[in-house]
Amino acid sequence: MADDRSDDTIGVGIIGAGNIGTAHTANLARSVSGSRVAAVFDVDADRAATVAGPVGARACSGDGGIDELLGTEGVDAVLIASPDAVHAEQVRSVLAAERPMLCEKPLAVTDHDARSIVDAEVGRGRRTIQVGFMRRFDPGYTALKRELGPDGIGEPLLVHQLHTNTRAPYGLFTEQTMTNMAIHELDIGRWLLDDEYESVLVLHGRPGPRTPEGEHDPILVILRSASGVLVQIEAFVNATFGYQVACRVAGADGQAAMGDGAFVTRSRSFNRGVDVPELWLGRFAESYRLQLQGWIDAIRTGAAPPGASAWDGYLATMVANRAIEAYHRGEEVAIEVPPRPALYDPID
Amino acid sequence: MADDRSDDTIGVGIIGAGNIGTAHTANLARSVSGSRVAAVFDVDADRAATVAGPVGARACSGDGGIDELLGTEGVDAVLIASPDAVHAEQVRSVLAAERPMLCEKPLAVTDHDARSIVDAEVGRGRRTIQVGFMRRFDPGYTALKRELGPDGIGEPLLVHQLHTNTRAPYGLFTEQTMTNMAIHELDIGRWLLDDEYESVLVLHGRPGPRTPEGEHDPILVILRSASGVLVQIEAFVNATFGYQVACRVAGADGQAAMGDGAFVTRSRSFNRGVDVPELWLGRFAESYRLQLQGWIDAIRTGAAPPGASAWDGYLATMVANRAIEAYHRGEEVAIEVPPRPALYDPID
Amino acid sequence: MADDRSDDTIGVGIIGAGNIGTAHTANLARSVSGSRVAAVFDVDADRAATVAGPVGARACSGDGGIDELLGTEGVDAVLIASPDAVHAEQVRSVLAAERPMLCEKPLAVTDHDARSIVDAEVGRGRRTIQVGFMRRFDPGYTALKRELGPDGIGEPLLVHQLHTNTRAPYGLFTEQTMTNMAIHELDIGRWLLDDEYESVLVLHGRPGPRTPEGEHDPILVILRSASGVLVQIEAFVNATFGYQVACRVAGADGQAAMGDGAFVTRSRSFNRGVDVPELWLGRFAESYRLQLQGWIDAIRTGAAPPGASAWDGYLATMVANRAIEAYHRGEEVAIEVPPRPALYDPID
Amino acid sequence: MADDRSDDTIGVGIIGAGNIGTAHTANLARSVSGSRVAAVFDVDADRAATVAGPVGARACSGDGGIDELLGTEGVDAVLIASPDAVHAEQVRSVLAAERPMLCEKPLAVTDHDARSIVDAEVGRGRRTIQVGFMRRFDPGYTALKRELGPDGIGEPLLVHQLHTNTRAPYGLFTEQTMTNMAIHELDIGRWLLDDEYESVLVLHGRPGPRTPEGEHDPILVILRSASGVLVQIEAFVNATFGYQVACRVAGADGQAAMGDGAFVTRSRSFNRGVDVPELWLGRFAESYRLQLQGWIDAIRTGAAPPGASAWDGYLATMVANRAIEAYHRGEEVAIEVPPRPALYDPID
Repeated sequence: MADDRSDDTIGVGIIGAGNIGTAHTANLARSVSGSRVAAVFDVDADRAATVAGPVGARACSGDGGIDELLGTEGVDAVLIASPDAVHAEQVRSVLAAERPMLCEKPLAVTDHDARSIVDAEVGRGRRTIQVGFMRRFDPGYTALKRELGPDGIGEPLLVHQLHTNTRAPYGLFTEQTMTNMAIHELDIGRWLLDDEYESVLVLHGRPGPRTPEGEHDPILVILRSASGVLVQIEAFVNATFGYQVACRVAGADGQAAMGDGAFVTRSRSFNRGVDVPELWLGRFAESYRLQLQGWIDAIRTGAAPPGASAWDGYLATMVANRAIEAYHRGEEVAIEVPPRPALYDPID
Repeated sequence: MADDRSDDTIGVGIIGAGNIGTAHTANLARSVSGSRVAAVFDVDADRAATVAGPVGARACSGDGGIDELLGTEGVDAVLIASPDAVHAEQVRSVLAAERPMLCEKPLAVTDHDARSIVDAEVGRGRRTIQVGFMRRFDPGYTALKRELGPDGIGEPLLVHQLHTNTRAPYGLFTEQTMTNMAIHELDIGRWLLDDEYESVLVLHGRPGPRTPEGEHDPILVILRSASGVLVQIEAFVNATFGYQVACRVAGADGQAAMGDGAFVTRSRSFNRGVDVPELWLGRFAESYRLQLQGWIDAIRTGAAPPGASAWDGYLATMVANRAIEAYHRGEEVAIEVPPRPALYDPID
Repeated sequence: MADDRSDDTIGVGIIGAGNIGTAHTANLARSVSGSRVAAVFDVDADRAATVAGPVGARACSGDGGIDELLGTEGVDAVLIASPDAVHAEQVRSVLAAERPMLCEKPLAVTDHDARSIVDAEVGRGRRTIQVGFMRRFDPGYTALKRELGPDGIGEPLLVHQLHTNTRAPYGLFTEQTMTNMAIHELDIGRWLLDDEYESVLVLHGRPGPRTPEGEHDPILVILRSASGVLVQIEAFVNATFGYQVACRVAGADGQAAMGDGAFVTRSRSFNRGVDVPELWLGRFAESYRLQLQGWIDAIRTGAAPPGASAWDGYLATMVANRAIEAYHRGEEVAIEVPPRPALYDPID
Repeated sequence: MADDRSDDTIGVGIIGAGNIGTAHTANLARSVSGSRVAAVFDVDADRAATVAGPVGARACSGDGGIDELLGTEGVDAVLIASPDAVHAEQVRSVLAAERPMLCEKPLAVTDHDARSIVDAEVGRGRRTIQVGFMRRFDPGYTALKRELGPDGIGEPLLVHQLHTNTRAPYGLFTEQTMTNMAIHELDIGRWLLDDEYESVLVLHGRPGPRTPEGEHDPILVILRSASGVLVQIEAFVNATFGYQVACRVAGADGQAAMGDGAFVTRSRSFNRGVDVPELWLGRFAESYRLQLQGWIDAIRTGAAPPGASAWDGYLATMVANRAIEAYHRGEEVAIEVPPRPALYDPID
């Protein structure tokens, strides 16, 4: 029995040993059934070694480091957690090495790169790419999605999404609010509604106290879906009061609002309330774990990746770029969604 | 002592004995210190008698009914609670009779009428008109306004207002969503921010299940204030799930959200929650009472009316009309606020 | 018309110009329909004058001060807001002067005094005494009471009441926790359940940081009603975090919990929550006003006082004294409720 | 690398294939890192086969079934999920077979059996028993425990625990409310407070609509800890409105309340609220998973079991039996906690 199972355990190669890569490594090694970490690559050799050591994985770095990782025995699958700008190239390398992969969002920064990845996967005829939109696994969003229908609030009419961060890790450039932060809302809105966007408008107003001259924060992104649903995204990179994600859907028969599932209310110093975290990891820790478990399970059983596909990753990138265009032009911009390749047809 | 005070009691003439007029009558007669109801006018003589009788007031109706009311001994002040379309004319009659008045919102339906009332009051040189934007007296909104500053959430950056009704008393015409329903938000936004609007945009999407062909519900009204604050108003006339008003302000240092101050949470049938009312009176009953008390107190002491002025009423009507224009044109419309007459300067 | 109403206005004499007496004076003079303040007595002549002046009332003090107040023209009714220890004697004086009265809780400190007042009122054959258990007028408690029945949570089975103060105005003597603080819960429990208590048990445990040696705080008072409902009262005089009152009822079909009806939630400094006040006035301001309005309305119409009767006041005092006995003896103590005089029969 | 890990994977034998055993099997096979299910025993051979089959485990049943399970190759550890009455005997068998085990609560039904297990483990000199008080792993309770101290609400003074079920799987016998339901609260109270109980009192009042004659539901269990903390447990087996667990702690500097971490609030049909589940699995699904992961991790590393020890299991059983005694006698019953064997000393 033990022998049979060992064949079954998926060895993962991690590309990128920063915060997210380190968290994924710990999850795969210690909390996900049927997985182990086989190798870790980072441009910083020390960091690769620090992350790989405790989990008994091989550390790779340097020029040929990714090839070394892909060539390591027992690397059955790859997780890409490197900086956004190198995602596209690394995805192509992993595709060439014929390994299933989970690529952190965004799949690529430009429409062109994202589309070329889709085309490459379609050319191979088999879905092996999952994009790390982990909110699709979140107990909050999945509960919210269950509300959208006749047993809940009826057909959705309006969506309001609130996303506040406490700092911009990349410096506060408004364009990156779209591609790095609001991209989560762009994806989850499509997923919640099972619908595509037709246009986007970006409004901005009074800047917050730490917004650099010439940049805008908070911003308001308003999308309209093919079925006419208005999706409002309020994104505030430097909100100072804490990290918070909320989503409310007004429907034909009612309204559903998703909060943060806080367990403990504290009364102290003439205030009764809940803690608001500084970072997103606490809010979405369970989503990250469930995403990895779903990914590993699918690899073990040969099923298609259960999360966002390369197609979803491409559309998120494309819509983010249309939002940037709308921001620069100051007016509504149309979104043209090309026909979906049959490879990405939903499986019933 | 008793004699002195009797001189002090303000006799009110009520114009319009519908739902709101009846509620105001009961409040003035039974819950407001220093007031009594002296006369009630309604086009329907029976209704006038039914409302006037229990409070010992004179019932007036018919062609000369309003003159009769204004001529009744002890009518020291007038409350206008008639249909929107006749407000302007009645306000002018009361102005001519030199009585202080509280006019239910809107002050007038057209910009022109509203402005001519302002001009008439300015011409008389004394503020005697209060407009019934009762939310300014609401414990929820006043608590929210206290948050806007250095001891609370800092300077306001974004406002989101949610207003759901369960039916349209006037039939569901999108234009009336502006002049009759969202006009509350138009006024309270100005009041919260101590700021004027510079532009308005109206978006509409997928209609609700009871929205007539060619009309739009829900709608999204987005205003931009002079200081750059974006004010989003989500108005849903026929929301089916209940009457609800909420307002959230994102500020430089935090965020404040106003709910409905529900006291009791019920757990039953696998649900734990609060009742949502079908009508607005429950939510704003205290606001109506406080508004009347403030109005009567000001009349007794000779102070200026404490609520919305004719100027506020004019601006609310004007902005609602710009919103209708934006709705028809499908694009952002500029709002030009004329200079404020000195009569309406804030009193420190 | 104005003349008729002036006869109708109730002139009130206030006994005691401390915090509560001052608040009652302001309410009667400015927020209660049909009332005025005619005279104010306080042992401190300056305080009497300070409170009486702005409302045009006569200030009384000194040895014959209460007689002077009762003899003042226009004192149609009396409100007693003096220290607990002198309530009983003053109630007897006002009874003798044949004026309706509202006596702040407790009606008396000892069973004997409270009972003798009941006997005196019964002897006169007419109900003229109301006791200031203002929670019976609270929008929270009245909403909670509406839940107790087939349309809500079904028959009540268990009640849990939480009451935290931030300081003990009288010094922290455990006996006064019963007669001055928990007495509110003793009364409201009877009122909620329409039932009488049969026994009481007092438990105490680990003292709070400011509890004097030999005293106990917090304490737990557990009562059992005639129909078997267990009523738990958690009373914490010096809770440091703020003033809070909550009540939860478990019923046959569900559960109802009363909170504080907070309107605004603030997110700031990594916390999202509501303010908790330091004093009770904010939480119960509306109850005080409604109590006074109900009292004045009843006097004007000749109806029985609408709040707690002298009988209710007597039972609250009696149960508080049984709780003190249970506290001293460390065991459950039986409560014998004598037959209710017919004068206090409920009016259908 | 793959080879090394296969040695490391813990094969678990499951005793009892009912609801809980089935849930544990699924978790170990699919959601817990480093574990697999090697064998499943049930008295019902079909049920054993149904549960064992999908996870590739051996199915055992019949008279020698537990010996067969213990003799199966790759059964490195055992999970006991059988009916309460046979726990003690099975624990002894697994001890004799020298396997680490996780025994569902209660460890045993009688004090004597529970104590004899403790003595046997002490005799062996090594901790190999963990008791399934899964709430110790719950994100809600662990967050609550973090509040108890100087950074949170200060020293705890009073605890209130609410536990409602919607049915009694065993029929509604009041004694089983203690040993099967409230035993969770008995354990979590000790764990929260790091303290032992000194006495217990059980109160009962008006029965719910489905309570059989002679039984009592809801009940109130009140414990006093060595440091004087009063712990109130409100247990309602047949609460009809849903399954709910809540816990509130009043402390020297504040108060902390644990709810259920609901994510979605639904507004529909004039109600705004959250779903309350019918069963406990939804509320505690994450606790069960974390409990198993912690147990497997400890076996892999050779650490002591991370959850409740046999000693904790013994004390919970003993306190439940003192509660039954208090229930029968109708008075407070002392709890004598014997000295803790050194084997159970906390590890720093």
